[in-house]
Amino acid sequence: MSLKDIGEFGFIEKISKGCLIRPNHVLKAIGDDAAAFTLEDGAVALVTTDLMVERVHFLRDATTGFNLGYKAMAVNLSDIAAMGGKAREAFVSIAIPRDCPVEFLEDIYQGMKDLAKRHEVNILGGDTTASLADLVINVCVVGSARKENILYRDAAVAGDIVCCAGFLGQSRAGLHLILNRIPADSPELKILKEAHLLPRPCLEEGWFLSHHPGVHAAIDVSDGLSSDLGHIIKESRAGARIDAEKFAVSPALKFFCRKFGLDATELILAGGEDYALIVTVSPEQIDALTRSFENRFHYPLQRIGEITDTQNAIIVFPDKDPRPLSATGWDHFSQE
Amino acid sequence: MSLKDIGEFGFIEKISKGCLIRPNHVLKAIGDDAAAFTLEDGAVALVTTDLMVERVHFLRDATTGFNLGYKAMAVNLSDIAAMGGKAREAFVSIAIPRDCPVEFLEDIYQGMKDLAKRHEVNILGGDTTASLADLVINVCVVGSARKENILYRDAAVAGDIVCCAGFLGQSRAGLHLILNRIPADSPELKILKEAHLLPRPCLEEGWFLSHHPGVHAAIDVSDGLSSDLGHIIKESRAGARIDAEKFAVSPALKFFCRKFGLDATELILAGGEDYALIVTVSPEQIDALTRSFENRFHYPLQRIGEITDTQNAIIVFPDKDPRPLSATGWDHFSQE
Repeated sequence: MSLKDIGEFGFIEKISKGCLIRPNHVLKAIGDDAAAFTLEDGAVALVTTDLMVERVHFLRDATTGFNLGYKAMAVNLSDIAAMGGKAREAFVSIAIPRDCPVEFLEDIYQGMKDLAKRHEVNILGGDTTASLADLVINVCVVGSARKENILYRDAAVAGDIVCCAGFLGQSRAGLHLILNRIPADSPELKILKEAHLLPRPCLEEGWFLSHHPGVHAAIDVSDGLSSDLGHIIKESRAGARIDAEKFAVSPALKFFCRKFGLDATELILAGGEDYALIVTVSPEQIDALTRSFENRFHYPLQRIGEITDTQNAIIVFPDKDPRPLSATGWDHFSQE
Repeated sequence: MSLKDIGEFGFIEKISKGCLIRPNHVLKAIGDDAAAFTLEDGAVALVTTDLMVERVHFLRDATTGFNLGYKAMAVNLSDIAAMGGKAREAFVSIAIPRDCPVEFLEDIYQGMKDLAKRHEVNILGGDTTASLADLVINVCVVGSARKENILYRDAAVAGDIVCCAGFLGQSRAGLHLILNRIPADSPELKILKEAHLLPRPCLEEGWFLSHHPGVHAAIDVSDGLSSDLGHIIKESRAGARIDAEKFAVSPALKFFCRKFGLDATELILAGGEDYALIVTVSPEQIDALTRSFENRFHYPLQRIGEITDTQNAIIVFPDKDPRPLSATGWDHFSQE
């Protein structure tokens, strides 16, 4: 089916289905000049937006519509998670090339809707337009949080413990499989591929962490640990010392590294798009926090280092010299 | 200067300047995973977003960056105006081709910022990324309104007077000048060209109308009167009869029509992108409303027809048979 056959309004009608899943507080969903909704009493609105462009962020031939839509939504939900907020409403703008079949577009929205539904997020509007070259998707998500709970990047304090919620390196390993066309023929490799294609935004973890005393700064790992931790220390005017020995290596990543003779630490440092959360926690609260985090989520909050007053970030190893944890220079796979 | 020279963060730093002009209620502006802000007590958030794609909505060679940025912001502000809201925060995503000079990009943001400042709107965040082909701009605006004041498309009632705030047809005439490379060598032609390039979002009018009793439905004229009125009657399950004789023809449009031998009514009906507001008003309130509107804005609120219970829209003329006011078939200039 071509977009020509159903027209813009026919397309909007098609994609509108299944978008409103939490009608409370919604005064107007898709179909007016703007969506209208209330936030809870005393709540702050959080807004994040992310633009994905064909041939820059994805190849249309190399992805399913579902995975593309899922990821476009996931990266925004992860940003709300990193603020300690609750994701609430999403707005999707899409520029559609003439040769893009409606089935692919519906699949994109299905991927968005599946993930949105899982987190009780409404898709409340957006914009659809033509494109003469690339497919472009912009997702904007509005979240809410109480003022006193929001986690900012600039709130890290020297002495804080740097923690990580979620495994690092899995998405990078999954990308390695995809780029090298290695079939995901075992449960472990499937996990890694899925970590790259269908990353899980840590909304529950972000909300939990934002309500626990002693949690200071937070960011999600989208560009890679060194780059994203770099934002925290830059904004907080601090430094960090990361301990390579402390990284939790997931069983799937261990399996992968054994199988392909690769180094887990390098993958952890090189990787991005894990959408794990990095938080900094005051030493007084760290024990209570890690205990109650593990009780709640049944996996450990990793303590991977600490915030220092040095204004730079280094990584220490058990068996080699410490190295600067720079935003570049770690991706040994960047030639792929 | 090329984007390569300053990098993404250099570019963001450049464009961040002048974005925060109303810091009250803003907890976090550009520079975190999401922006954070509060709405006034009891206020509803309104969100609208608009995607502009090179070669579909604009030609990079044929526009200034300023005009492009201005318009990308204006169309969103106009949507908030059409809801009767107050525009508050804007978020700008941009996909940038390699050959796009930084000066052009800065000019885009200048156009946005100038208009945003005029309406006390903050630019609080967004996303910047590369594009391999076209320049793409997505603006998302969050506005606020009280629940009881919001103007929806579906609220028109048979018997309502259809009113128009702002002149129609001017933008279409301006486009005619631009497409035919006719120099705007008189004040009148300058007004028309500006009406097309730098349309004024009717935020004050929308706010005023939303606070006046008896104002029911509203929409802004972006696609053209017939198409946009069509949305009101479709959503309201009503019809409309528009009286061609009642259109106010601006002095500039009169001048243009005399000079080029064109028909003002045809331009008014063919045109889009006027960003005037169409509202429907109960007959009991119409006299009081038009009086106080003119007192406040020093130009008349035009009464151009009425809402009927016929489920279709017609236009009546003094000297010819009535015709259906269809969404298509009116643009005699579409061959240009």
